[in-house]
Formats: sequence, structure tokens, C-alpha cells
Amino acid sequence: MTGIPLPTVQRLIRVLMTLPGVGPRTAQRLAMHVLQLPPLEVQRLVEAIQEARMSVRSCAQCFSMTEDEVCAICRDPQRATGGLCVVEAPLNVWAIERTGAFRGHYHVLMGVLSPLHGVGPEQLKIRELMERLRSGQYQEVVLALNPTVEGEATCTYLAAQIRPLGVRITRLAAGLPMGADIEYVDELTLLRALQGRLDL
Amino acid sequence: MTGIPLPTVQRLIRVLMTLPGVGPRTAQRLAMHVLQLPPLEVQRLVEAIQEARMSVRSCAQCFSMTEDEVCAICRDPQRATGGLCVVEAPLNVWAIERTGAFRGHYHVLMGVLSPLHGVGPEQLKIRELMERLRSGQYQEVVLALNPTVEGEATCTYLAAQIRPLGVRITRLAAGLPMGADIEYVDELTLLRALQGRLDL
Repeated sequence: MTGIPLPTVQRLIRVLMTLPGVGPRTAQRLAMHVLQLPPLEVQRLVEAIQEARMSVRSCAQCFSMTEDEVCAICRDPQRATGGLCVVEAPLNVWAIERTGAFRGHYHVLMGVLSPLHGVGPEQLKIRELMERLRSGQYQEVVLALNPTVEGEATCTYLAAQIRPLGVRITRLAAGLPMGADIEYVDELTLLRALQGRLDL
Repeated sequence: MTGIPLPTVQRLIRVLMTLPGVGPRTAQRLAMHVLQLPPLEVQRLVEAIQEARMSVRSCAQCFSMTEDEVCAICRDPQRATGGLCVVEAPLNVWAIERTGAFRGHYHVLMGVLSPLHGVGPEQLKIRELMERLRSGQYQEVVLALNPTVEGEATCTYLAAQIRPLGVRITRLAAGLPMGADIEYVDELTLLRALQGRLDL
């Protein structure tokens, strides 16, 4: 594949290529870098991977990432009376936390519905979401999925499931991102911004 | 930095950001991927890194990468009578090998002269190159450095060093890459192609 006549290097490149966004060229460049690192630096890299992987697990309640059985947000009694915010992945939890604008709990779906990729409701944490909502603890559920085709389809599906419970269902506003130029923003975003226009 | 409240994950992201071409976003995406891998896959990644790093070393003669004391090319008696091809890095050795057009030995400089980055002749394998050339084994030295400002400066420096030894000095041809469109090729490449034009 690469013409590199060293089996262990070929193997390293093949393994690196399984990482997201890493093609043959990037894998080769990463491998060359790692092979020229001092042994101590290699050890540091390897330990960082192992320690992070060993110490991190899914929160038993919201499926976000945590180093404990239940994450700090789920454990915080002050947040139990807020709503429940449904996101796709742990990174989204931390992105929303940075805004400081949501003070409830989260529920990480671990993906979105995607029939083409074999992801149905059973592959996501939807059963667990419904159980949490049925407990009656939450008056509002915020669907904070990405505004993609699959994210929107998942929103529609979840809304239909949740509606019978009588919980208030909201979703993130769609519209112009801050700093955008109307001339360059895509049509669909502009359409959403118009449809969702606000009175001043 | 990332707002991720897990110290081991932060540390992993920081370590990943030391890799070439990996910025904060890529590091975050790689970390999330690794943290969601099954432990066995993590082990496979870590072992591939460790095994490659442990088994690979610099060839004692040409400074290319090898799993032995001296690399296969340097050990091949058939290649001892060809010229000596000077390259920047081990990857370049394998790129030239794939062409099958060079049947001599290599010498890897491990970089190019770059005063701005504190790389002078002492930081490169230039002393070792001169020793090999002084042995009288090579009738020709091919300077196969990248056609960058630093590569060209290094070529000029090396040529001045080597000239007194009376060895034939050549460099790779500069010109249009195959499949190029003259309309889109950069000016300097076109200039070189004109200057180096060949009789038909």
C-alpha cells in the first residue's frame, strides 16, 4: 500500500487509518512522527490513551462521559428540577454547558436515527429516555439534535413518542448564526430564519 | 480550553495536539473516537504504536528507517556501485524506491537547513554524508531534496561542500508534474520547465 518495507510500520499505518478523518497520507505522516519521537514521549502518548480510556465511562443515567458511576451534572441536586436536554453525543453536552443557559439534566442518545447506516431506535438510548420521562421528573424536554436531515428526522420521531406523556417538547431555534453574512448563508438556513422571525 | 470537565480526557486531547496537523478540533474528535472504542481496539492501537516504535531504528549507515542495524538497501551488495541519493526523510527513500529508477544507496539528512528554525549543518547528517563521500565509493551524488526554498538552499550548500571531492553532483529535474495543466501550474514551476526544456 505505502511501499514502506517495514511490517510494524505498515501495521501502525493501517491501525491509524481506522481513526476518523485519517486517510493513508495522514496516517503515514502520523506514523513517521511517532517513530521519530523519543521513547519517553511515545510512552506519554500511550499512557494518555490508556488512562483516559480506562477512567472514562458512560454515565449510568444520561450516557454522557464521566469518570464516576453517575456524572457530576446528574448528581447535582440543583439541576434536578430543570428540563431534560436530549443531545446526540457527549461533546454536545459540554458545548451546551459552556453557554451556561441550560440548568437541567441531559440525555445522550449516542447517535441519531439513520436507517441507511443500520441505526434504528434500538441502537440509540431512546428506551432509556422514555423511562426517564415517564418518571414524571421532567416538565420539559429540549431536543438539541444537530440540524441535519437525520437529526431532524430523529426529532420528529422523538416528538411523536414523547407527545402522549404530556411533557412540553421544545427544540433549538434555527436561524442565522452570529456573524453570518446573509449573502453567503445557505438557502435553507435563511428560509428557517425567515420562518422563525421574531417581533421587535 | 475544551470545556470538557474530565482531566484524563483533557490530558489526552493535549497530548494528541502535539501530533503534526492535529489542532484542537481534530484532537477532540480523535479523543472521542478512542474513548468510545472497545478496550481491545484501544489495546491494538497502543500495541501498534509501541511495537513499531520499539522495532524501528535509524540505519547506522544511511539514517533511513529499518528494523535491523543496517537497512536492506545498504546491505544489498548489488547497490554498492550505484550513486548516493541524498534525501530529507525516510519517506522519501521509499517514494524513490517505488519508481525503481535508482539502484544505488541513500543518505537521509533528517531535515533541511532552516536557520529560522535553528537547523544548521550540525543538526543534519551532513558530516556523515561527507565521510561517506570521502570514502571514494560513490562516483555520483544525487541531491533529491524537496523543491522548496529550504530544500534548494540546502542543495546549494551541499554542492559547495561536495564539489572539492570531484564527485559528480546531480539534482532532480524541475518542471511540469505529469497531468498538470499549464494554465493552472504555478509560475515558478513553469519557469523551471522552460529553463529546463529538452530538445526533441
